[in-house]
Amino acid sequence: MEKIRIGIVGYGNIGRGVELAVERNEDMELKAVFTRRAPETVQTMSEGVPVVHMDDMLDMKDDIDVMILCGGSATDLPVIGPEIAKNFNIIDSFDTHAKIPEYFAEVDAAAKEGGNVGIISVGWDPGMFSLNRIYAESILVQGNTYTFWGKGVSQGHSDAIRRVPGVKNAIQYTVPIEEAVEKVRSGCGPELTTREKHLRECYVVAEEGADLKNIEETIKNMPNYFSDYNTVVNFITEEELKENHNKMPHGGFVIRSGETGREGRKHVIEYSLKLDSNPEFTSSVLICYARAAYRLARKGESGAKTVFDIAPGLLSMKTEEELRAELL
Amino acid sequence: MEKIRIGIVGYGNIGRGVELAVERNEDMELKAVFTRRAPETVQTMSEGVPVVHMDDMLDMKDDIDVMILCGGSATDLPVIGPEIAKNFNIIDSFDTHAKIPEYFAEVDAAAKEGGNVGIISVGWDPGMFSLNRIYAESILVQGNTYTFWGKGVSQGHSDAIRRVPGVKNAIQYTVPIEEAVEKVRSGCGPELTTREKHLRECYVVAEEGADLKNIEETIKNMPNYFSDYNTVVNFITEEELKENHNKMPHGGFVIRSGETGREGRKHVIEYSLKLDSNPEFTSSVLICYARAAYRLARKGESGAKTVFDIAPGLLSMKTEEELRAELL
Repeated sequence: MEKIRIGIVGYGNIGRGVELAVERNEDMELKAVFTRRAPETVQTMSEGVPVVHMDDMLDMKDDIDVMILCGGSATDLPVIGPEIAKNFNIIDSFDTHAKIPEYFAEVDAAAKEGGNVGIISVGWDPGMFSLNRIYAESILVQGNTYTFWGKGVSQGHSDAIRRVPGVKNAIQYTVPIEEAVEKVRSGCGPELTTREKHLRECYVVAEEGADLKNIEETIKNMPNYFSDYNTVVNFITEEELKENHNKMPHGGFVIRSGETGREGRKHVIEYSLKLDSNPEFTSSVLICYARAAYRLARKGESGAKTVFDIAPGLLSMKTEEELRAELL
Repeated sequence: MEKIRIGIVGYGNIGRGVELAVERNEDMELKAVFTRRAPETVQTMSEGVPVVHMDDMLDMKDDIDVMILCGGSATDLPVIGPEIAKNFNIIDSFDTHAKIPEYFAEVDAAAKEGGNVGIISVGWDPGMFSLNRIYAESILVQGNTYTFWGKGVSQGHSDAIRRVPGVKNAIQYTVPIEEAVEKVRSGCGPELTTREKHLRECYVVAEEGADLKNIEETIKNMPNYFSDYNTVVNFITEEELKENHNKMPHGGFVIRSGETGREGRKHVIEYSLKLDSNPEFTSSVLICYARAAYRLARKGESGAKTVFDIAPGLLSMKTEEELRAELL
């Protein structure tokens, strides 16, 4: 079998997750890891996989079918996404919701110029959650959709705490409030405030001699991040943090309730994820969309796409006949 | 706005559900109901919708964009599906799993001959559940998928009971066993027998003077339908049946648990439906796939398709730009 040749761009949690996901998909092989660091300082988990400087990427134009971009959405992807899409098929997990239309347009222009396919905003949210929002809303046209996240670590909120003076280290869990989830599941279509949907649980390591009361207040009143939520701040030691909070679990729910017919019969559609490792799951989604990008490019398609544009059959290793016989 | 013109073929529970679903989708209009009965004996809920005999269907070839076939899978669809696909775009809910490949091939040939699109096996299982099986399996390549149905009425099992001598009327509920669902949700990937997954709950109205003990034994030992399950038989009066069992609720779960990475981290993906009206929900799914069929046909595509072949964006009333801005 001819394998789909994958390149990883950026070797952090997601990059390593993609490396592991390739191992679990027999129709794929990892051809190279691209980095901005000095290549000799980067040690991959797999043996024999070359680590190449990003500046030398074009030397491998004929060796890679799909590049998985594993950089951040804030500053990295907006630059490298369109740039790499000129020369390679790409997949990324761009997740700055407000900037998706603009980013889509840029990747679209670049990918079309290069005759490549770029599938953006792949993962679980955006990604699988987006799919469940569109399917549920298309079926139940009149209704309400709710998204809950957690329990899981929010990197952005953890970073925000770490910037508070006197804080040495910190981690923040987003926790869905069970009472709200139950209300939504009942199908009554409640209006819920931000505060009613999620709780923010913080574990903070303070510098020696820091004013704990002051740190707690600063966190709780931080606009955008915490002030609209009920926030719990727990002070712990660096050892406790390392021991009890070193995992990256996550998950969440997309629930739509709506009604049909003249009598307004109620229906509830729920999709939920319970993930032991957020980066490994995200990477597994990226990898199956890489398969779709590869197939679409072989059919001559080009331009930017999102999960909304990809027929589900393109994601599977199985043939169309197998899918109809086994999964339909 | 130019509306998508829908025809309903067969006016039972699903046909009426489609009629109601069209009312809730502003980009659609119901043009006609087709029936094998004498048209004057069929009364639609909507005013001014012509009821036309199936033999006269071709007279409306230019007036209908998509025909929704609302017949049964056992004897009706295998005949009318390919026949109608020669002249119209069609959607159906063909659900005889074992015969899907054969039926697909027949609709495919007919639809290609006529230059039409035929999307088969649409609904929630097959349909939404199939989609969740393919997405979950494509992401978590190593794992186990479980489907649970209910609590809900199984028409086939209810009919089987009604054929037992001494039975006047009956209804059968398929009930997922909570303990099994919880075990699956835990992510441990259990092996479950048929008996461990579902319970069968029967409400039976007996003829006067019938041997109840004998009816109960006949039901419980019926091969294929009941003998592999724990079955509960309750005898009730015709009035109780009419009063307490006149709804058509249903639902179920698709759960996949699987692992990623070298350390085998666990993940659980769950999709669930709680439906007040099985036919109205099924019809709502049919209607949004009718939108996709219409769009594909306008792009010049033809042939048979399943939910696996349809990009989710085609189902929504929203434009691609709106979808990316609002739902991604």
